[in-house]
Parts: sequence; C-alpha cells; structure tokens
Amino acid sequence: MSTSRLEAFSDGVFAVAITLLALDLVNFSGRKGELGSGLLHYWPHYATFAVTFVTIGIIWVNHHAQWERIARVDRPLLFLNLMLLMFVVLIPFPTSLLARYLHGSDQHVAAAVYSGVLLAMGLAFFASWFYTARHPSLLHVEIGSGELRVLVRRNIVGLLPYAIAFGLAFLSAGASLALCGLVAVYYMLPERLPEHPGAQPPPA
Amino acid sequence: MSTSRLEAFSDGVFAVAITLLALDLVNFSGRKGELGSGLLHYWPHYATFAVTFVTIGIIWVNHHAQWERIARVDRPLLFLNLMLLMFVVLIPFPTSLLARYLHGSDQHVAAAVYSGVLLAMGLAFFASWFYTARHPSLLHVEIGSGELRVLVRRNIVGLLPYAIAFGLAFLSAGASLALCGLVAVYYMLPERLPEHPGAQPPPA
Amino acid sequence: MSTSRLEAFSDGVFAVAITLLALDLVNFSGRKGELGSGLLHYWPHYATFAVTFVTIGIIWVNHHAQWERIARVDRPLLFLNLMLLMFVVLIPFPTSLLARYLHGSDQHVAAAVYSGVLLAMGLAFFASWFYTARHPSLLHVEIGSGELRVLVRRNIVGLLPYAIAFGLAFLSAGASLALCGLVAVYYMLPERLPEHPGAQPPPA
Amino acid sequence: MSTSRLEAFSDGVFAVAITLLALDLVNFSGRKGELGSGLLHYWPHYATFAVTFVTIGIIWVNHHAQWERIARVDRPLLFLNLMLLMFVVLIPFPTSLLARYLHGSDQHVAAAVYSGVLLAMGLAFFASWFYTARHPSLLHVEIGSGELRVLVRRNIVGLLPYAIAFGLAFLSAGASLALCGLVAVYYMLPERLPEHPGAQPPPA
Repeated sequence: MSTSRLEAFSDGVFAVAITLLALDLVNFSGRKGELGSGLLHYWPHYATFAVTFVTIGIIWVNHHAQWERIARVDRPLLFLNLMLLMFVVLIPFPTSLLARYLHGSDQHVAAAVYSGVLLAMGLAFFASWFYTARHPSLLHVEIGSGELRVLVRRNIVGLLPYAIAFGLAFLSAGASLALCGLVAVYYMLPERLPEHPGAQPPPA
Repeated sequence: MSTSRLEAFSDGVFAVAITLLALDLVNFSGRKGELGSGLLHYWPHYATFAVTFVTIGIIWVNHHAQWERIARVDRPLLFLNLMLLMFVVLIPFPTSLLARYLHGSDQHVAAAVYSGVLLAMGLAFFASWFYTARHPSLLHVEIGSGELRVLVRRNIVGLLPYAIAFGLAFLSAGASLALCGLVAVYYMLPERLPEHPGAQPPPA
Repeated sequence: MSTSRLEAFSDGVFAVAITLLALDLVNFSGRKGELGSGLLHYWPHYATFAVTFVTIGIIWVNHHAQWERIARVDRPLLFLNLMLLMFVVLIPFPTSLLARYLHGSDQHVAAAVYSGVLLAMGLAFFASWFYTARHPSLLHVEIGSGELRVLVRRNIVGLLPYAIAFGLAFLSAGASLALCGLVAVYYMLPERLPEHPGAQPPPA
Repeated sequence: MSTSRLEAFSDGVFAVAITLLALDLVNFSGRKGELGSGLLHYWPHYATFAVTFVTIGIIWVNHHAQWERIARVDRPLLFLNLMLLMFVVLIPFPTSLLARYLHGSDQHVAAAVYSGVLLAMGLAFFASWFYTARHPSLLHVEIGSGELRVLVRRNIVGLLPYAIAFGLAFLSAGASLALCGLVAVYYMLPERLPEHPGAQPPPA
C-alpha cells in the first residue's frame, strides 16, 4: 500500500474530528433574555474547545512529519495508525464531558477521562512511531541507534505532561485542563522543537 | 472516469462515517454526581464503537487493495461502489441501535440489524469485486480463472462470520457483537492474509 | 485557479453531505420492547435516505463528468459551483422533513420542499454547466453549437421529472418521492446515457 | 512541510464546516398540521445559512489564492493557519445563535457574537497573510514593498464591513446580518476584485 492514500484518509479523519468539536458548542441553550450571561457561563466549552482544537492540530502536524519519513506501509503499521485515529475520533466525547462537568463533584472523573484519552492518543502515536523506527525498511532514511535513543527519550518526556494532567485531574479539573493547554501553547511557540508525543523533528 | 477521483470520494465517505461513530458517544448524559458509574454503565457504546471502528477500517483497507487493481471504471462499477458506500454510511445507525439496546428484550432485533448491515456491506463489497473480476478489461492485470475460483471461495468464507453473527443475534446480542469483534481482531493480526469479504491480497 | 483544488473541495462537500444523511436515521427512538415494529414504522426514513443517497451520488458523478471537461475556472464559475454546493449541503434538511412528514396533512408541503430543492439543485447544475458551455475558453475542447443545442434540450428534459415531482407533491408525497426514486434508478441502469440535469456524457 | 498536505487538510476543514451549517436547519421542529407556516417562520435559519455559506465559500477562495503564492511553510505560519481554521470551525456556533435569537432582546448579543467571529476570522486571515508577506522566503514570488502597502490597505478596508456589522449589532441584529450578506454578494459579483479580508488578487 502506498502511503499517500493512507495520509489522505488520516487527514480526512483529522479534519472531520477537529470540526466536530464545534458541535458541542452548538448544543448551547440559554434562558430567554439572558443570552449574554448564558454565553459567559458557557466558558468551559470554549476553553475545552480551544485546548482540544490546538492539541488535535499538533497531533496532525506531528502525524504529517512522521509520514514524510515513511516510504512503505505494512499491515501492523496500518493498524497502529488506525488505533491512533480511533483515539483522535474519540476526542470529541471526553471534550464534551469535561466542558459539561468542569465544575462540581464530577469534575475529577471528567478530567481524568479527558487527559487519559489524550495520553492514550500520545501512546498510540508513540507505538506507531516506535514500530517504524524499529523497521528501517519502511523508512526513506534509516534512523541510527543513537538518534533512536534520543528520540525515544524525547517522546517519553513529551508524554509526561499528559500523565501529570491525569494525576492532577483528581485534585482539580481546571488545573488538569490548564496543563493540557500549556502543552498546546508550548508547541505553538516558534522557537520550540517538536518534541511532542511521538514526534520526530519535521524536515523543514 | 479515472479511478483516482472515485477513490478520493470513497475515502472521504469512509473518513466521515468512521468519525461520525463518536457522535453516538457524545449523546451521553448521566445523573449529576454519578459520572463515574454512569460512564461505566455506558460500556455497550464503547464496545460497539470499537468493533465498528475497526470493521470500517478493515473495509477501507480492503477497498484500497481492490481499487489498486482497477484501471478503469464503468457505470455499473460506479454504482456498485455507490451501493457499498451506502451501507458504509448507514453503519452509525445500527451501531447506535445496538449500543442502546444491547440489554433487554430488544437486543435480538438490534443485533440482527447490526450484523445484517455488516453482512450487506460485505455482500456489496463482494458484488463490486466480483463484477471487476468478471470484466478483465477494467483491471490492470487480469485475474486467472483458477485464481478467481480461489478468491471467490475465500470471499464467501469471509462473509460466513457475519451470517453466523446474524443467526447468533437471536440467541444473544452480546455473543453476536463479540463474534463481529473477533473478526475485526482476526484481520488486525500481522500474520493473517486479508481474506475479508471482497478482499484480494494487497499487493505489498 | 486550478480546477483540481476546486474538485477536491467539491468532493469533500459531496462526501460529507452524503454521509450526514445517516444522522437523521440515528435520531430514531422507539418504545421499549417494541424495537422491531418501531423500526418497521420508521420506513419513510429508509426510503428517503436511499433515494437521496443515490440522487447525491448521481449529481457527484455528473459533477465529475462536467469538471473533466473544464480547463480553467473564472470567478462566475466559481460562484455558480458554490451555488450548486449550497443546494447539495441543504439536502439533508428537506430529506429529514419528508421522512418525518411523509404521512398526514403536512406531507404536501414536505414533498414540495424536497422535490423543490432537488429541482433547484438541478437548475444550479444546469446554470454552471451552461455558463461553461458558453465560455469555450474555459474548456479543454470546445462544445459545437449543434452539440450544445442537443445537450441543452437533454438537460431540460432531465429537469422535467423533478418539476413533475414538485407538482405531484400536492397530490401525494409518496408518489412524488417514488418519482424521484425512479429517476435515481433510471440513472443507475447500465445502458442509460447520463442525461441527468446538467450532465454531459462522461468521456469513458 | 510541503504546502499541498496543509492545503488538503484546510480544504477538508472548510468542506466539513460548510456542510455542518445544514445541521442547524435539520433541528427544525414544527407543530403538526402547520408545517407550511412553521417553515416560513423559520426564515432566520435560511438567511443565516445562506450568508454564512457564501462567507465561508469566499474565505475558502481567498485561502486558495493565498496558498497558491506560498512555496514553504514554517512553524509560525502553520499555527497562524490553524488559528484561521479554528475560527472557521467555530462559525456554525454563532450562526446557530443568530438564527435562533434574531428576534427579541437577545438579538444584540447574538449578532455581536456572529459578526465578532467573522471579524476574528478576517483578522486571523490577515495575520497569516501579513506574516507570509513579511517573510519573502516563504513565497514563490516576493511581494514588493509598494505592492505590500496597497495590499495591506486593501485588507484593512476589507475588514471594515465586519467591524461596522459588529457596531450595528447593538442597533439591530437584522441590519448587522444584512451587511454581512451584502459583503458576500459583493464578492460574488463578476467584476469585483477579491479585496476580501486577507486576500490578494487570485492569479487568474
């Protein structure tokens, strides 16, 4: 199988998943005559939307960087990529949960599910990336064992914030979401290298 | 008509259908203060989501393998492919039914509809594949009559589990879903040949 | 502007619109313990789904045939194509209306809106096609005036069934839907030429 | 990163967002036996749908014209484009708000949110465009400083109507929407140059 159709399919899934995030917002319903304050109280939905949107965007960028290096697809890689996409597709669900339950006693479960799914997505990314790194025949240019060790360490470091956000969920959902947001902002800064879960440096 | 635009359109439909599966999850609503147990009791939705997601993923892989062999499209093939896509697009509906009715007396109807649509999708795949096999001028490389016989037998064998799942539905919806899940897991195993409904061995 | 990105964008809109048709089905809710009969009484949703799915599929095929002939895009053609896509995007709305109101006194309005939108889609297709036919510099191969006259006549004949379905709506919604379904079946028959609204014969 | 995959991803997001606009319409529910008058009273949904559809269409056209000039993508441009897409994805939300609250005392907030999001989308477009204009190495052909000054002035003029629509929102939501609609119609006229927010003249 050529990589181009797999990339096109993955891009389609990313594009639909990132756009479906807005459906949660559309479910807004406010009391008549109080739209302004209703929209202000709706802020958890904007916060989770923005954090999740940028997070999916980063994963998409990293996915692209990954596949630019891959020359061939075999069956296990195909299904590892499908696993990654399954978590991408799942994301609107915990996002909607966290937005609805950011306050009150349910916040801990909601934030744990949210950061847990992001962590699982990062692990799925790492798995598919690690598989390709260990199967040099799938790559355009082989990854050296020294480079591999550096990249693995970096990837594990990139997964840490989501593990911490998972722990933070049991203290405060807001703090857990804020940490996920910081990760997103960090990867948007121009001077940063893409050390995100599963990412190798993009070629340019 | 060139095959590339048809493949791109089909990929788009697959990508949207597979992503819409998550919309069923987003409809979750739990009692306040009991999010944890609410989410646990929601497990039929996760199970049907996972099984269906991987099943659509496998069909997409097989669809790709099929079209890599096809050089030209004629009108009947165009509409046979459209029939396949119609069942792909339908899938979120029986998936949502099965998730909601996995317990109780309605489970048999729900599981029969679910496995029935998967079976119909497999038959539509088989039909479009059989049509191309019988019209060698549409193919890059003709399929020999010996190879054809092997492939037809294999395809019919690939449809069997869904027929059995249809029958199982009248005993237990859970068992029917479990069988569909086993089929999905089977096709994900690295050493397996792609003997799924309508599939020919992918070129690589 | 090159035609390839416009085609890709149009394909995306067609793929999403055709897949969103299934969301209407997912809204099904039946009484507990009566899923079987609930699903049987839901048949207007399946009928409108199937007719609309094939109709959008045909328009997509014709759209592809149209754009295979077009070499360049100018601003008016860009917006005529956007008008066509606007009606394509609209279609899930009248489809859902007709499914819900196929019986009872509201059926006439529902069927008139449904066939009216299909007619408007056909007219938008005809408009964008007629514009290109009259601007030969946009085409790969110019359309002769004799060929143009034949094609215009054929297109107008292709719009007739939807105009008749619009009229039939005021007698019976079922008859109006059945006529739209017959048009869809007609275009699927292998021996037919694609004389659908706005279509020219596909090159192969 | 090559620009082609970024364009394909952006096209996917545009296509999904523009198609999701119709989901707001599907939520229609009328009283039995009064479908006709119910559909007539639903007109704010058609008006906001049409205005928003054409507005997203114009932004898509301008986005295409922008990226035809861009040869390379760097990290800041990647995220500026992601910011633009975030506002595109958001649009179904304020569109649904404005359609539901076009009458009554909530209209001012709804129209301010609607025109505010369109303005923010225009600003995001301007930002990504301005960034590329200032980084000539990203472009196929450098933009001269004289041309730059003209284009910046033109872009700012293009943002004005949305700023005015934002102000008008506090007088009348209908007037604010009408102005946004006039902008859309203006850009559809054949003789107009594409002076929309962030747009440079398309190459052809």
